[in-house]
Amino acid sequence: MKVGGRAYRSIWVENEEVHIIDQRWLPHEFRVATLSTLEDFQTAIRDMWVRGAPLIGATAAWGVAQAMMRDASDSHLNEVSEALLETRPTAVNLRWALDEMQTTLKALPESERADSARRKAAAICDEDVEINRMIGEHGLALIKEIAADKGDEPVNVLTHCNAGWIATVDWGTATSPIYQAHDAGIPVHVFVDETRPRNQGAQLTAWELGEHGVSHDLIVDNAGGHLMQHGEVDLVITGTDRTTAAGDVCNKIGTYLKALAAHDNGVPFYVALPSPTIDWTLQDGLSGVPIEERNEREVTHVQGRLPDGSIGDILISPNRTGARNPAFDVTPARLVTGLITERGVSEASAKGLAAMFPDRVCA
Amino acid sequence: MKVGGRAYRSIWVENEEVHIIDQRWLPHEFRVATLSTLEDFQTAIRDMWVRGAPLIGATAAWGVAQAMMRDASDSHLNEVSEALLETRPTAVNLRWALDEMQTTLKALPESERADSARRKAAAICDEDVEINRMIGEHGLALIKEIAADKGDEPVNVLTHCNAGWIATVDWGTATSPIYQAHDAGIPVHVFVDETRPRNQGAQLTAWELGEHGVSHDLIVDNAGGHLMQHGEVDLVITGTDRTTAAGDVCNKIGTYLKALAAHDNGVPFYVALPSPTIDWTLQDGLSGVPIEERNEREVTHVQGRLPDGSIGDILISPNRTGARNPAFDVTPARLVTGLITERGVSEASAKGLAAMFPDRVCA
Repeated sequence: MKVGGRAYRSIWVENEEVHIIDQRWLPHEFRVATLSTLEDFQTAIRDMWVRGAPLIGATAAWGVAQAMMRDASDSHLNEVSEALLETRPTAVNLRWALDEMQTTLKALPESERADSARRKAAAICDEDVEINRMIGEHGLALIKEIAADKGDEPVNVLTHCNAGWIATVDWGTATSPIYQAHDAGIPVHVFVDETRPRNQGAQLTAWELGEHGVSHDLIVDNAGGHLMQHGEVDLVITGTDRTTAAGDVCNKIGTYLKALAAHDNGVPFYVALPSPTIDWTLQDGLSGVPIEERNEREVTHVQGRLPDGSIGDILISPNRTGARNPAFDVTPARLVTGLITERGVSEASAKGLAAMFPDRVCA
Repeated sequence: MKVGGRAYRSIWVENEEVHIIDQRWLPHEFRVATLSTLEDFQTAIRDMWVRGAPLIGATAAWGVAQAMMRDASDSHLNEVSEALLETRPTAVNLRWALDEMQTTLKALPESERADSARRKAAAICDEDVEINRMIGEHGLALIKEIAADKGDEPVNVLTHCNAGWIATVDWGTATSPIYQAHDAGIPVHVFVDETRPRNQGAQLTAWELGEHGVSHDLIVDNAGGHLMQHGEVDLVITGTDRTTAAGDVCNKIGTYLKALAAHDNGVPFYVALPSPTIDWTLQDGLSGVPIEERNEREVTHVQGRLPDGSIGDILISPNRTGARNPAFDVTPARLVTGLITERGVSEASAKGLAAMFPDRVCA
């Protein structure tokens, strides 16, 4: 998508060098970083210069590819893969991308590995872009239906957290239908939940939408219910970290509250996801998905641009007040209108998902 | 309630001088201010050194009383009342307190007004304390019922915003049952919603509870639904700015989302209120209560203690991103388990309220 009028991906190669957006400084500064050494790639993943499952996977793939140019031996391949895996050991996509690279490369003689690794890393990126483009196409149909009833009025979409293009290689998941609608000239307006505690909405989604020229307003996480009560939201689209085979959706903390409000007000609530994030082994999300509790400091502090222009954080609560910080919640399938996948829009149910993915469903 | 081990009210008189807590510095600094001149009182109300409807009313009453010591003429009384009313023209309690003072004083000869004004201001404060104490007593019965089933486990209460003792003269409304339970030795733990955009939960409720020694955790506004899904919340108690005759509750933005989550998880959702905040002329809250939209800056910025120790605010979003900032929402009566008033716990319905307040209900 666009930044300052120019089209970007979140990771790209120019003159054989890998470039990323160092996302730690968004939205306050747009910094591009070049990754060369293994250590560069490790740092970028571990210290969250890049984030979002697909982008983490793509970055790791390019980390392997760059390493293969220096030494394509089995031992180096193993060593590099292990080093990259350790940077975010729980990231499923990271493991998947590294496995893909290893499987491809180990089947080849060392002399062919450098070229092949670059082609494979590029293919992993292109595949992600294509999946997200397809999600956007299916989501666009939903937006078009609503737009048909609204005349010149914009279609109002509410989103939570950042399931945007900078969490993927391009398009994003939840944002892909929005960008496609915007690019097709359909008037669309986005309410962006700030998404405490880490404020990915305020810091990333608002930035993305603004740079691409999509009309939007930042709102606090408390405000969405009120807007829905007053007919100001036409549909909700969020992303997901993990969806069960029965259609329960694990996503950033607070998603469940917006789903409840959408349900209470008859507002369609859609979740956009690439099908690999479906966990076919799991039915009940509430009992089956372990929810990470993160550091209290994320709750007691807020990051932003300080009055002196530097980026830092402030303490918002009394010194001795502790905090609870569950990072995700589970939205039961009954509250989800549909799942927007690269194959089409599925009902959020075991039946709906099995019908759309007969090749994947567990017996 | 207690601050640093000593019992306080939020406004008190010592050696004929009126003292308040300058709440702008909470939770980072506890500053007491002395109000003497009319201008002192105006500043304290207008610039939110004091906030919360009951405390604003009490402060205005003491502003009139102090002015009467200097000049008890009708013209001065009128002038002072007008000047104080202008500081927060939409505050219903401010107008009420000033009307009470005027009605009392105008019936008296000038020579008696100074003494009478002080007695009346003190009575307004004492009345507020007594109403809140009664609310707490009725709410305490609810907590005791839950405690009886929990053995030594604490009763977990979730609250939103600050309906605490520093928004009133003492006890608070939503917090009064909590303080009474704590003082009675019933183990109670409070989940405090931070309450963006102004963070009254993080800044005020967490501070209050900590100073009085009540166990609590700060949570982001997104987290309450998840905690309720996992049985971690036994009941919700919030305050309200205005409740309709049918039991619809207007309160700080985000209250509605917590009520939805409570309803979805079978968690009792109570609202604590002094009966004067019931608007007997209004039935439907959603169509009848105008919702104030406040400054965008409250959303795009967050206030706290900066790394250098000073208090200031940080920008959390891109420079050019705008915001919507509805300050309140309406929770429909169907989601409210009960209204805790000074007379007892009423069903949130026209019938329930009429039965408890037959002397007030409009025909």
